[in-house]
Amino acid sequence: MLYWLFELLREFDAPGSGLLDYLSVRAVGAFVLALLIAIVFGRRIIDKLQLMQVGEIIRDLGLEGQMKKTGTPTMGGIIIIISTVVPCLLVGNLSNIYMILMLVSTVWLGSLGFLDDYLKIHAHNKDGLNGKFKIIGQVGLGLIVGLTMFFSPAITISEGATVQSFGSNGNPVTEISYNGNDHQVKTPATTIPFVKNNNFNYKWLTQWMGHGAHIAGWVVFILVVIFLVTATSNGANLTDGLDGLTTGCSAIIGTALLAMAYLGGNVIYSTYLNIMYIPASGELTVYMAAFIGALIGFLWYNAYPAQVFMGDTGSLTLGGIIAVFAVLIHKELLLPILCAIFYIEDLSVMLQVGWFKWTKRRNGTGQRIFKMTPLHHHFQKAGGTVEAIIQKPFAAVPESRIVIRFWIICILLAAATFVTLKIR
Amino acid sequence: MLYWLFELLREFDAPGSGLLDYLSVRAVGAFVLALLIAIVFGRRIIDKLQLMQVGEIIRDLGLEGQMKKTGTPTMGGIIIIISTVVPCLLVGNLSNIYMILMLVSTVWLGSLGFLDDYLKIHAHNKDGLNGKFKIIGQVGLGLIVGLTMFFSPAITISEGATVQSFGSNGNPVTEISYNGNDHQVKTPATTIPFVKNNNFNYKWLTQWMGHGAHIAGWVVFILVVIFLVTATSNGANLTDGLDGLTTGCSAIIGTALLAMAYLGGNVIYSTYLNIMYIPASGELTVYMAAFIGALIGFLWYNAYPAQVFMGDTGSLTLGGIIAVFAVLIHKELLLPILCAIFYIEDLSVMLQVGWFKWTKRRNGTGQRIFKMTPLHHHFQKAGGTVEAIIQKPFAAVPESRIVIRFWIICILLAAATFVTLKIR
Repeated sequence: MLYWLFELLREFDAPGSGLLDYLSVRAVGAFVLALLIAIVFGRRIIDKLQLMQVGEIIRDLGLEGQMKKTGTPTMGGIIIIISTVVPCLLVGNLSNIYMILMLVSTVWLGSLGFLDDYLKIHAHNKDGLNGKFKIIGQVGLGLIVGLTMFFSPAITISEGATVQSFGSNGNPVTEISYNGNDHQVKTPATTIPFVKNNNFNYKWLTQWMGHGAHIAGWVVFILVVIFLVTATSNGANLTDGLDGLTTGCSAIIGTALLAMAYLGGNVIYSTYLNIMYIPASGELTVYMAAFIGALIGFLWYNAYPAQVFMGDTGSLTLGGIIAVFAVLIHKELLLPILCAIFYIEDLSVMLQVGWFKWTKRRNGTGQRIFKMTPLHHHFQKAGGTVEAIIQKPFAAVPESRIVIRFWIICILLAAATFVTLKIR
Repeated sequence: MLYWLFELLREFDAPGSGLLDYLSVRAVGAFVLALLIAIVFGRRIIDKLQLMQVGEIIRDLGLEGQMKKTGTPTMGGIIIIISTVVPCLLVGNLSNIYMILMLVSTVWLGSLGFLDDYLKIHAHNKDGLNGKFKIIGQVGLGLIVGLTMFFSPAITISEGATVQSFGSNGNPVTEISYNGNDHQVKTPATTIPFVKNNNFNYKWLTQWMGHGAHIAGWVVFILVVIFLVTATSNGANLTDGLDGLTTGCSAIIGTALLAMAYLGGNVIYSTYLNIMYIPASGELTVYMAAFIGALIGFLWYNAYPAQVFMGDTGSLTLGGIIAVFAVLIHKELLLPILCAIFYIEDLSVMLQVGWFKWTKRRNGTGQRIFKMTPLHHHFQKAGGTVEAIIQKPFAAVPESRIVIRFWIICILLAAATFVTLKIR
C-alpha cells in the first residue's frame, strides 16, 4: 500500500507533469502519507513498545476505569514524530527556511520528551527529567526560533501587494499586483484580533526608547516566543490525561493554523483577504498537513479506549510545535484564544495549588477549587462545587464524552479565532 | 449567551460596518450560532423527548453494551434541523436560489423522517413509514432539485473568467478578469476526478441523439440526482447504528463540501485554482457552515455514550442534504469517493441479503459474508471470517473505537477526493 503510494508520488513528480509543484497537491499528499504511515507502522511500533514493557505507570487517582489503563504502552509520540517528519522529507522543500525550522523544532522537542519518558521508565525515576532541564530545553528552542527570525534574511513579511478592482458593470477585472522584493521588510510585526488591519508591531511597545526601539522590539518579541513555547508545551503536557484528548485538540488547532498558513503564504489570497503576506511561508502548509495527518493516524490507536499513550515524547512536542508554527506565521498572539484549552489546563493546576497553599497558611487546612486538576479530571468526579452551583445532581461524566466535548470546545475556539480577524 | 450573540450580530450588521457583507464572516457566524443553539436548546429538547417517552426500541442483536441503550430518547434529528435552519434565516441571503433549495430540502426530508419516527414510536408500528412512501419522498425531492436546476434562470455556471499573469521578474501582476453575465451558461456540466480540467457534461452521454441531446442530457442528469439523493439518504440511515457515527461522518463530508462551495463560488479563487465557477453559489457556504455547526453541537449529546439518537428524522435528512448540496455545486460525481462509507454500508446489507438468498437457493442453507450488517456491527463481533483471513485472533472492537476509526477513514476519503481533483 505504502509502496504504491510512493510510486504514485514519483509519477506525480515526473518531468512535464510537475504536479508536485502545486503546493496544495503536496500538502494533501503529505497529509495522506502521514496518516497511512501512522496507521501502518503505528501497529508495529506499539507492539515493540509493549515487548519492551514501556508501560505507563498509572497513579491511582480514584477515577472510574482508570486502573484498566495500567500496562498500556506509552512513548507513542514517536509514531507522531516519525509520521510527521518522513512525509516532509519526501515531498517538502528542504531548502525552505520555515520547513527547516519546523523540522529542527520537532526533533529538538521530541528528543527532550523522549529523554523525559526514558528516565521515567528505564531509570525508574518517577519524576522523569528534572524540571529545570525541561524548561531549559523549551527556553532554548524559543531562543533558537526567535533569533533565527531576527537574523535570517529569508524571513520577511511583505507590504507590497495591492488589489485593484476596475472595469464597467458586469465586466469586473481584479488586478493583484505584487512588487516583488521591493517591499519585503524585516520587522517584528504580528497579527492581533479586533483592530483594523489586524496588525501590531512589537516596536510599538518600545518606541519610547528612541534609537534602540527596533532592537528592543525584537527582544520583546523573542521573550514572547520563549514564553509561548514553554506555556503551550507544558499545557499540552498537562492536557494529556484522557484518551485522545491532546491528540484531537492538537489536530483541530493544527487545522486552523494550516488555513492561516495557506492563505497568508499566497500572494493572491492574502492580498484579496487583506491579511499579512509572508513570502515563502506557504511551505509551512506541507509541514502542518503532515502533522495533522500524523495526529489523526495516531488517534486510530489513541482513541478511547486507548491502545497507546503519547507520553511526554508526544505531548511536550505537540505543544511546542503548535507554538513555533504560530510564531512563524506571525499569529502567536492568537494562541490565547486558539489554544485556550491548553492554557486553562495550565491555569487550573496553578490555581488549585496556589489556593490550597494560601488557604492552608490562613486557615490551617488547605481548600481546593476543583475536585481534581488538571481540569479534565474534575469532570470525572461526581458531586462537589459544580453540583452546588447548578443545583442539579452532577454525575461523573464518562471519559469518552469529556474528550469529545473538549474537542468541540476546541473547534468553537478555532472558529472564534477566525471571527476576531474579521477577514472578508 | 445567545442573546449576547444576537446583539453582536446586530452590531456587525450596523450601517457603515457592513461586516455581514463578508461571506466568510456570515459563514463563521452561522457555524458558531448553530453550534451554540444545538448545545443550549439541545438539552431542553432531549429532556422533552425523554418526558414524551420517545425512546428508541432496541432490538437485541447480541452486542456488548447494546441493551444499555434502551430508553435513550430518539428523534434528536430535530435538534440538527432547528440548529441548521435558524442561523440560515438569521444571517443567510434568503433571496438566493441555492439557499432556498437547501432550506426546502431540509424541511422536506426532516418531515419525511419525522413521519417515519412518529409512526414507529406513537403508532407502535415497528417498521415505520411504508418503504414505498419513503422512496417516493426521496425521489420527489430529487425531481424538485433536478427540475429547479433545469428551469431556474438563476442557476448557471460560468466559463468567462480568465487569469493572466504578466510583469517582469520580481514584479508579477496577476489579473483576473470576469466578463460578467456574457459567459454564464446553463448546461448539465459537472466535476469529475482524474481528467484534465475535471469537467464532464452529461450531454456527452446523449450526443448520439443529435437534436434531442441537450434535453436528454438534462434527463440523464435528473435521473442521477434522484439516484444519488435516494442512495445517500438511505446510506446515512443505515450508517446510523453506533453513537456519533453518522453525525461525525456527515460533519467531515460537510467540511469537504464547504471548502468546494467556498472556492467554486468565488470568481478569484475558482479562476486561480482552475475549477468551475458557479455564480451566486457562494451563499451555500453559509448553509453548510450552519449544518456542520449543528452536527458538531448535536455530537455534544450524541457522542459515545449517547444521551440522544438522531432517529430517521436525523439520518434520512443528513444523507439527503449532503446529496442535494453536492448536486448544487456540481460535484455529485465525487460523492462515490466522499460518501463511500454510506454507500459501503448500503452495499454491505445488499451483499449480505443477496448472498444469503442465493446460497440458500443453491445449498439449502443460507450463508453470510459478514458477521452482521450494516457493516459497523460486523466489527463489534469477535472471531469469524476476518480472523481466518488475517490469521490473528480478531477481538470485538469497542464501539467508541469503531466510531472514531470510521471517522478517520472518512477524513482520508475527503482528502482523497481533493487529491483526485489535482487542483493547484
